[in-house]
Amino acid sequence: MNKMSPFGLLISYEEALALIDEHTKPTDRIEEAPIEEAVGRVLAVDLVAEADVPGFDRAAMDGYALRAQDTFEASPMKPRVLKLIEVVQVGESAGKSVGKGECTQVSTGCLIPRGADAVVMVEYTERSDEDVVVKRPVYPKANIAPRGEDIEKGETILERGNLLTPAKVGVLAALGRRSVQVYARPRVAVIPTGKELLEPGTKLEDGQIYDVNSYTLVSIISINGGVATRFEVVPDTTEDLKKAVKRGLDYDFIVFSGGSSVGERDLLYAVIKDLGTILFHGVQIKPGKPTLFATVEGKPVFGMPGYPTSCLSNAYLFLVPTLRKMARLPERSERKVKARLAKRIVSASGRKQFLPVKLREGLAYPVFKESGDITSMAGADGYLLLPVNVDVLEEGREVEVILFD
Amino acid sequence: MNKMSPFGLLISYEEALALIDEHTKPTDRIEEAPIEEAVGRVLAVDLVAEADVPGFDRAAMDGYALRAQDTFEASPMKPRVLKLIEVVQVGESAGKSVGKGECTQVSTGCLIPRGADAVVMVEYTERSDEDVVVKRPVYPKANIAPRGEDIEKGETILERGNLLTPAKVGVLAALGRRSVQVYARPRVAVIPTGKELLEPGTKLEDGQIYDVNSYTLVSIISINGGVATRFEVVPDTTEDLKKAVKRGLDYDFIVFSGGSSVGERDLLYAVIKDLGTILFHGVQIKPGKPTLFATVEGKPVFGMPGYPTSCLSNAYLFLVPTLRKMARLPERSERKVKARLAKRIVSASGRKQFLPVKLREGLAYPVFKESGDITSMAGADGYLLLPVNVDVLEEGREVEVILFD
Repeated sequence: MNKMSPFGLLISYEEALALIDEHTKPTDRIEEAPIEEAVGRVLAVDLVAEADVPGFDRAAMDGYALRAQDTFEASPMKPRVLKLIEVVQVGESAGKSVGKGECTQVSTGCLIPRGADAVVMVEYTERSDEDVVVKRPVYPKANIAPRGEDIEKGETILERGNLLTPAKVGVLAALGRRSVQVYARPRVAVIPTGKELLEPGTKLEDGQIYDVNSYTLVSIISINGGVATRFEVVPDTTEDLKKAVKRGLDYDFIVFSGGSSVGERDLLYAVIKDLGTILFHGVQIKPGKPTLFATVEGKPVFGMPGYPTSCLSNAYLFLVPTLRKMARLPERSERKVKARLAKRIVSASGRKQFLPVKLREGLAYPVFKESGDITSMAGADGYLLLPVNVDVLEEGREVEVILFD
Repeated sequence: MNKMSPFGLLISYEEALALIDEHTKPTDRIEEAPIEEAVGRVLAVDLVAEADVPGFDRAAMDGYALRAQDTFEASPMKPRVLKLIEVVQVGESAGKSVGKGECTQVSTGCLIPRGADAVVMVEYTERSDEDVVVKRPVYPKANIAPRGEDIEKGETILERGNLLTPAKVGVLAALGRRSVQVYARPRVAVIPTGKELLEPGTKLEDGQIYDVNSYTLVSIISINGGVATRFEVVPDTTEDLKKAVKRGLDYDFIVFSGGSSVGERDLLYAVIKDLGTILFHGVQIKPGKPTLFATVEGKPVFGMPGYPTSCLSNAYLFLVPTLRKMARLPERSERKVKARLAKRIVSASGRKQFLPVKLREGLAYPVFKESGDITSMAGADGYLLLPVNVDVLEEGREVEVILFD
């Protein structure tokens, strides 16, 4: 085999996903998050209520707490007159017990004083000095929200694995928690390789370009539940790549960009084969064929293609589902819109195709220029995924566009 | 009018939104963000390319750079033999110019040496020592990606207002930017009021509950492009509320929770009326009727209802669109699913209704208990919005559920 020869047997996208799935697992690392920062995190414990919420019977309306029996015969024509013995404010406890013929003024949310078993709404009363005129009967428990109505002590109110929405964060606050155990976000080492790559902000010499992929990868990782650490560009030498892999093993997950396509300079395959197990190298997908997946000391390692479009499209197709699984997040919720193709598409035969498109007035315009470009992705609103067995899609055909975030 | 009397005229949800829209505007504050942290931010400037990307003609394939004319008569039967004068690595510049009958070995991404005008793919050649046997003709410019192919100098490549996706962050890197001007996130003061409220983590006395709303509000603000600062609970006194409003004016936007429903303790209305302009107080919506919107010194002030469900549902309905507009973010992309009602719903006549539901096997189960609960929202997968003019929805009827994040 020529040393610059192309890949051997390519596997299908679905086989690639299955292999990744087999060799990755959801994180078991747990950390404590303050509830102010818990939204979007994944709960790592079942949450059992240690107390009733609310912890007391409370008024559900503004009015007067009283003994329901005292009102049974009240009517607008024949009102009952009760003696006002106290005014209780929200957040206070009542000093006096409500006896027969008595009442206590309460506002919504107030604790119900001892002795009282109902609240009459202020609208059905009249007040004069210490007398309250009640014009309607109320039933026992009327307008009282009982202790534990919201959450009962002992109840498992949130479960391990729950994604913490704003409302679920509210439950944590209602239970009096200041912080909560959540699963740690997977830490991802993002390692750009290639000696032609320079850090943005430095001056380019002939033949050099700025590193793009590590920045797009850091971005996509950070919006999909991971914490990315970007390494400085690693030159393509066996020694440097080995060192980078070893440093990367401090993280949960390693992603190389560049270094996985064919060429004399591409040593990543050999280095990783030496340190771990290659699970696939080459997928029936366009762009992004030369994607590599391996494990080293049990940690997943991706080798993404060096071309920006290929790297990013494979990040959407492989990295995002893997990362979200490791983070225990639900699958990325894809927003999809239907559109008609603005022009005929000839697909890559025998490869699944990721085709960025721009949307204008219900039409989808393919914007793919070259895999080497970043602008084709940047100018796109979303992408089509064309199945392996589709060769041609005619202009005007309805397609489903998956929108970028 | 009784001092505990209900609201005056309620306005419709649509009128309320229009009033908010009239009195809020997208932020003009700009800040610099490192590109590693720019994803999800909104670009505050047009971005004009200051250089071509790539900055040089480069090889699109692994092979040999040569003069196309030298290959015009090459064929597998009558190959042309060229002299290999140099091997150029990616990232290097070529030392030698390619003359007639000569070639230079290049890899994908390599700068094309002076003199060469095409690249022949390695697959169509054979090499022996310093000779390269070329078996096919190539056309001028074949397998060369020209300078500026991705981005042309002077081109406006990203526009003010663009949401920075991972691909657009890649464009920034490709242009050599280390940081970029983005619109600042709106800073929101979240102010809980009510003397019955305690901070989570402290011990409750009779009649007290933990503050829930400021935590749900902080959560929903942080996932919708804002930066929330949570104030400590403010007691319901005129003096304390005034101080809180004044402190809140250091922020772009103030959100009070609690303090806007009817009751003797509710002074927020009076305090804000005194300091600014009330635009509405009371909306035809359930739950969440007692929502207040005002401006103080030109800054928007929301008074959210104190009940957790009401507060949070109104946050989805009013706060999120307002915040995203101020942050210059696109509208929240609502994920929607169709489901059938698991039971008959009797709607609140004359009020738009926000109805949290749980989804199980294609059925939507209403989970609303009381506005005072937080669990009805926490246990819900999403919500229905029932129009004002709907009174009853029958079991089995198809509805559209808007999913929570």
